[in-house]
Amino acid sequence: MHFPTIALIGRYQDSGLHAPLRALATLLGQDGRKVLVEADTARHTGVSEYPTATFAQIGQQASLAIVMGGDGTMLGAARHLAPFDVPVVGINHGRLGFITDIPVEAAQVALTDLLQGRYETEKRMLLSATVWRGDQQMYTATALNDVVLNRAGRGGMIEVRVEIDGTYMYTQRADGLIVATPTGSTAYALSSAGPILHPEISAMVLVPVAPQTLSNRPIVVPANGVLNMTLTAMGRVDAGASVHFDMQTWSDLVPGDRIVVQRAAHTIRFLHPAGYNFFSTLRRKLDWNRMPRSGNDGD
Amino acid sequence: MHFPTIALIGRYQDSGLHAPLRALATLLGQDGRKVLVEADTARHTGVSEYPTATFAQIGQQASLAIVMGGDGTMLGAARHLAPFDVPVVGINHGRLGFITDIPVEAAQVALTDLLQGRYETEKRMLLSATVWRGDQQMYTATALNDVVLNRAGRGGMIEVRVEIDGTYMYTQRADGLIVATPTGSTAYALSSAGPILHPEISAMVLVPVAPQTLSNRPIVVPANGVLNMTLTAMGRVDAGASVHFDMQTWSDLVPGDRIVVQRAAHTIRFLHPAGYNFFSTLRRKLDWNRMPRSGNDGD
Amino acid sequence: MHFPTIALIGRYQDSGLHAPLRALATLLGQDGRKVLVEADTARHTGVSEYPTATFAQIGQQASLAIVMGGDGTMLGAARHLAPFDVPVVGINHGRLGFITDIPVEAAQVALTDLLQGRYETEKRMLLSATVWRGDQQMYTATALNDVVLNRAGRGGMIEVRVEIDGTYMYTQRADGLIVATPTGSTAYALSSAGPILHPEISAMVLVPVAPQTLSNRPIVVPANGVLNMTLTAMGRVDAGASVHFDMQTWSDLVPGDRIVVQRAAHTIRFLHPAGYNFFSTLRRKLDWNRMPRSGNDGD
Amino acid sequence: MHFPTIALIGRYQDSGLHAPLRALATLLGQDGRKVLVEADTARHTGVSEYPTATFAQIGQQASLAIVMGGDGTMLGAARHLAPFDVPVVGINHGRLGFITDIPVEAAQVALTDLLQGRYETEKRMLLSATVWRGDQQMYTATALNDVVLNRAGRGGMIEVRVEIDGTYMYTQRADGLIVATPTGSTAYALSSAGPILHPEISAMVLVPVAPQTLSNRPIVVPANGVLNMTLTAMGRVDAGASVHFDMQTWSDLVPGDRIVVQRAAHTIRFLHPAGYNFFSTLRRKLDWNRMPRSGNDGD
Repeated sequence: MHFPTIALIGRYQDSGLHAPLRALATLLGQDGRKVLVEADTARHTGVSEYPTATFAQIGQQASLAIVMGGDGTMLGAARHLAPFDVPVVGINHGRLGFITDIPVEAAQVALTDLLQGRYETEKRMLLSATVWRGDQQMYTATALNDVVLNRAGRGGMIEVRVEIDGTYMYTQRADGLIVATPTGSTAYALSSAGPILHPEISAMVLVPVAPQTLSNRPIVVPANGVLNMTLTAMGRVDAGASVHFDMQTWSDLVPGDRIVVQRAAHTIRFLHPAGYNFFSTLRRKLDWNRMPRSGNDGD
Repeated sequence: MHFPTIALIGRYQDSGLHAPLRALATLLGQDGRKVLVEADTARHTGVSEYPTATFAQIGQQASLAIVMGGDGTMLGAARHLAPFDVPVVGINHGRLGFITDIPVEAAQVALTDLLQGRYETEKRMLLSATVWRGDQQMYTATALNDVVLNRAGRGGMIEVRVEIDGTYMYTQRADGLIVATPTGSTAYALSSAGPILHPEISAMVLVPVAPQTLSNRPIVVPANGVLNMTLTAMGRVDAGASVHFDMQTWSDLVPGDRIVVQRAAHTIRFLHPAGYNFFSTLRRKLDWNRMPRSGNDGD
Repeated sequence: MHFPTIALIGRYQDSGLHAPLRALATLLGQDGRKVLVEADTARHTGVSEYPTATFAQIGQQASLAIVMGGDGTMLGAARHLAPFDVPVVGINHGRLGFITDIPVEAAQVALTDLLQGRYETEKRMLLSATVWRGDQQMYTATALNDVVLNRAGRGGMIEVRVEIDGTYMYTQRADGLIVATPTGSTAYALSSAGPILHPEISAMVLVPVAPQTLSNRPIVVPANGVLNMTLTAMGRVDAGASVHFDMQTWSDLVPGDRIVVQRAAHTIRFLHPAGYNFFSTLRRKLDWNRMPRSGNDGD
Repeated sequence: MHFPTIALIGRYQDSGLHAPLRALATLLGQDGRKVLVEADTARHTGVSEYPTATFAQIGQQASLAIVMGGDGTMLGAARHLAPFDVPVVGINHGRLGFITDIPVEAAQVALTDLLQGRYETEKRMLLSATVWRGDQQMYTATALNDVVLNRAGRGGMIEVRVEIDGTYMYTQRADGLIVATPTGSTAYALSSAGPILHPEISAMVLVPVAPQTLSNRPIVVPANGVLNMTLTAMGRVDAGASVHFDMQTWSDLVPGDRIVVQRAAHTIRFLHPAGYNFFSTLRRKLDWNRMPRSGNDGD
């Protein structure tokens, strides 16, 4: 049997999650599989009739994790489970996401196939990042989408000096600087004019937000490079700056702090229904089938 | 009676135009109005039981012109009728456009109101452009959307020196250079990262297409300025360059030719159903109510 | 005599300002003009042998104000002096700016001409903005460059509902939203892909920063419109949002707060040496004479 | 001895090439190396006292090729020599390029080191492209920068359906579609808002030129993918479309033609002086050390 033990993880804040989560658990149990419910998910949704497990326990015991929520929930689960190599499936309870591509209405059919071994596998890289102050390690985190260094709300840009593998790249003066994985290239980086990276590209993309120098452009660099970003100045002394790892925030940056970003040691495996392809998700999410403009083309 | 004489103008290539055009003519006739059908429209659609008229005759006799087609048809009618100050209404026989904003299904209701005097009026500026070779005038045309100077299909950029009111602006090396009116700012210029100009802005916008200098940006200049664009070089001797006035093309440019662009003497009046506003058209055409991105924002 | 009373205003933080400021004052005095030194400028630079004056006194007594500093110093002086219609000249003590276009080395020659009446005049509009909470006015300010509504440093976008003259425009989900004057169109707005507006354009431009909806584009609206921007949501409850008026910041926004922006009642007059033109400043600041790209064009 | 036989290749059109080319040949000869001069280069420059060779002969006999000219000359030489694995060095006789990074004034010093074995090696991928009409192969070419499908000069967009490895990607309606290598990412693609790809990235980037759908963005896809681009429509019947391979043009496209693009079988090796790095070239070419904007940042 494929996937004998399956963990369920849900978006905590979603009050409507109770019913579909329980229906899914019931289905899996009837199918003869062992069901674990992530501890916080069980507590928030009240689906408490199954054994609960922490992410670490899920990592050790489960052969598959099913995430029910949005892309944000998926990001969190993926960061937790990557070290354990447990594959993850995303069911979207709401609007479809880039990485949660099974609608809850179609979940039963899609999962039946998938649980019988008919699926596509995608490996996605993560970033590992550390904030250094002198030789002191201040904060460490993992990110599936992006590491973002940005100014706080007060006026003024930040100035960031970037090196890769010890070689000087450039000094950015901007609102912020995004380092995105291929997964993150369709998230925040896309809003700042970054390119889309196909998931199989082994690379990170650096995308400045509102850069002062108009010829600054997104740069795609090899995934095995080590980025060193030093906060060299802030627009105002009291401006403040912070760094975000997906949505985890560390806000206490001072000039001189360095953020070192590199590929994480582990990847996360996403499973998709057979026939999945990345481009159909792109077309749907970016609405590429509509053609909004006209007026100059003779119609 | 508002609008006692009404001219009908249709998109020639549209074989499905016959029925709605005749229905509209019938409706107007029953209402006691005199109906004119533009001569080419009559010939192509076979709606031949009404007096036909050239654009000049429409300009002299009609109190309103109703255009049935797309934005392209509307552009042509507007250019022809602007000198006569006949207002124009656009009914879209197909996907709604920026300036043809009444769907054919809703035409009867929308027109009933409008013909009784309940409508919004918008004045749109046009451009007048002349191609000069030395002191010889090679070509003259009017444009409602834009005047576009661009390279022909062979490789290589064009180089264009631009002056406004005799003052040097810049020399562009690019695939092309667009001069758009507010109406044209939502057409081709928008695809080249131009801004949207509200129809009441008295201005033209210069938008380069694929400019070599990365700090080149769209520039909005006063509508009363006179632009002088000289083709100073072509990427290759055999590259060729052409100039477009909406969709009218003049392809025989040689280095040294000048295109002089300025506001046309006349404006065109568009009538819209009461309650029309520009921003609801923008939201619909640019699909601003959907929110395609997610993944980084905790959902 | 043109300009019998001249006020001098300097950038406080600039320790090198003492000598050129005194030289300028001496020159003006020898020329038979009355010299006032702005009070804070006098205190910080130690140029204390002339009568000092507040901005209000300058506004009432001076026939010209000369600002020595950068564009930031000029913004502050312009905001203070606009209500009094005192014209302003900018001398750049450092790298030339967009609005401080006389280099300190050339100041003596440039001013000699200007003080004899040979100059160009440019009027620039300002914005007047008020923050409302319910029917309570929380903060009011004037801006020459821009009013910027943006998220604080913590993750998550802000959501802003925008109306103009009571008509709904759109709801932006973005890092921020800039409302810029023509003067501000070459400042922060330019870094977020906004267009350049010629100073004579009577308009404001709305430029989103990192907008979620990819089809969102800068929109140029008439200067006489009244913009109403309501903060409808923040990405996270604790995210925070702030509003900036040039560089003056008000940081305590809560959802539901409204920022009302409109053209200020007064304009500011900039004087430039005879022969000045806006486009030569643009070319210099944006480095349009260099041509950085090559490789595809046969060279 | 490193590099016993060296071929010299020059930009034909450059009348000033004679002297530096002869000086270089003399230097190499004195150093005891065999010098070959590419046949057309010899004919055009009159440097005729050395044995001449076709590109194929250079490929078989030379251990190094030195190209004197601009990036365009380098592109041509690289396409010819890639199948033979002869490394290439670029000396720029004019403004420095992205891939011709030794100024002619510094050539002697730089080459002395390089010829003694102190250099950096960079491998660059090329594209191989074929135009198909039905099952007939119409044209085949190699490109180091890019393959560009674009409309001819007459108005109207082209419509291109793109597949990768047999999977449908999207249908573009645009002025053109660029497929660029990392080398080409800093050429034409950069002017159309494409990202910069580090030379070690194993990828191609698809960049639309003036796309109709505003949410279209550059996409980076794996270098081992096979792209199939079908011209499905042209804006006007008489519009015309052409395809460019670097600067080689094939202009006779008709709807239904397919362009198949994939990584070429061979790469080209560029040699650079020891200490070369890609980012210093970027900073110089894109002028990243200047900071053109100000006005909003307190200076």
